[in-house]
Amino acid sequence: MTTATGPQVPGRPAATPRRGRPGYDREGVLQVAVQLFIEQGYDATSVSDLAARLGLSKSALYHHFSSKEELLGLALDDALGALEKALQDTLASGGTPTERLTLLIRDAVGVLIDRLPAVTLLLRVRGNTPVELAAMERRRRFDQQVTALVRQAQDAGEIRTDVDAAVATRLMFGMLNSVVEWYRPDGPAPQGVLAEDIVTVILQGVGTRNGERA
Amino acid sequence: MTTATGPQVPGRPAATPRRGRPGYDREGVLQVAVQLFIEQGYDATSVSDLAARLGLSKSALYHHFSSKEELLGLALDDALGALEKALQDTLASGGTPTERLTLLIRDAVGVLIDRLPAVTLLLRVRGNTPVELAAMERRRRFDQQVTALVRQAQDAGEIRTDVDAAVATRLMFGMLNSVVEWYRPDGPAPQGVLAEDIVTVILQGVGTRNGERA
Repeated sequence: MTTATGPQVPGRPAATPRRGRPGYDREGVLQVAVQLFIEQGYDATSVSDLAARLGLSKSALYHHFSSKEELLGLALDDALGALEKALQDTLASGGTPTERLTLLIRDAVGVLIDRLPAVTLLLRVRGNTPVELAAMERRRRFDQQVTALVRQAQDAGEIRTDVDAAVATRLMFGMLNSVVEWYRPDGPAPQGVLAEDIVTVILQGVGTRNGERA
Repeated sequence: MTTATGPQVPGRPAATPRRGRPGYDREGVLQVAVQLFIEQGYDATSVSDLAARLGLSKSALYHHFSSKEELLGLALDDALGALEKALQDTLASGGTPTERLTLLIRDAVGVLIDRLPAVTLLLRVRGNTPVELAAMERRRRFDQQVTALVRQAQDAGEIRTDVDAAVATRLMFGMLNSVVEWYRPDGPAPQGVLAEDIVTVILQGVGTRNGERA
């Protein structure tokens, strides 16, 4: 656990607090808010909790942001925007459906790891507020587009058709999204290796002999 | 959303409230508590919230349970106990390591679906209380035993060795655990089909032609 008060931000040097001048810019406040939402849950975190963690008064905090929902919205938009961009780049790229799917898996792992806190928050969204409902709707559209790509790969005879495309999509992203729960930069699989491991396991399964990786 | 007060339990007929006699037994209280913890988050749910949802006084609730942590502990023990039993049955069964792994995947899908609310809660545990820390420790031991089984299958030359056994275990259970987020009894894959789909995708991947299922 990190300290409950003061401007100590996990994983980065402490900002120097100056009298009358908060030690945070908007981006810094957002980072601390996301961390706190992950630790305590968004619903359970009040603006007072966040002000206490930052060592700011509530009014100083409101100088940066109008509400905790605005902070949540920015974090979710950051995660969703990056995932949507990866998908659009993938769909615009040439190649077979399976090549595009492979590219998407690799890029999505990159987004998850680069934006671990924001994506963690996105995956925990439960739809208790309009901001969360809007994010869930964007996730649904994303899933539908990936499912359409999986179906194209099936129709092209490139991948198995005995698993429903929507189920295959959910299983793939279930595996992929689990990364936010257990990824550690110093863990057994660094980022590049992990992305290839996930491509390999999704496309070839674990029950196969080592062979050419996709 | 279910009604915020009264003894309506989602998915089961309402108990008949009788004057001076709460309409819930311990099991009924536990079910409603788990549902509320999932909706609001455990940390954000107070004993007063739970009493309101049940339409009971706090003292009537304390007649059944000493604390909300006791309720959480019972739900987590239910989920963990079932997963541990599936693992012990698997390890005690004959067969090759891969046959045992297949059995475990199938049984674990069954546990997830049969105990969806309790397993959902287990997967959201963040370690903010001693009960949660104890559950996380049991999950760690479970993961270690599964990783050992994956390593046996690798050593036996049955499954690929170019993905680290601990990473493969996490990816498999990432896929498997995602079921709690999206499984619906009336969805595209009913329980038995889903278990086979997951066995197929984990062992053979999606990028293969249809063939013999494991």
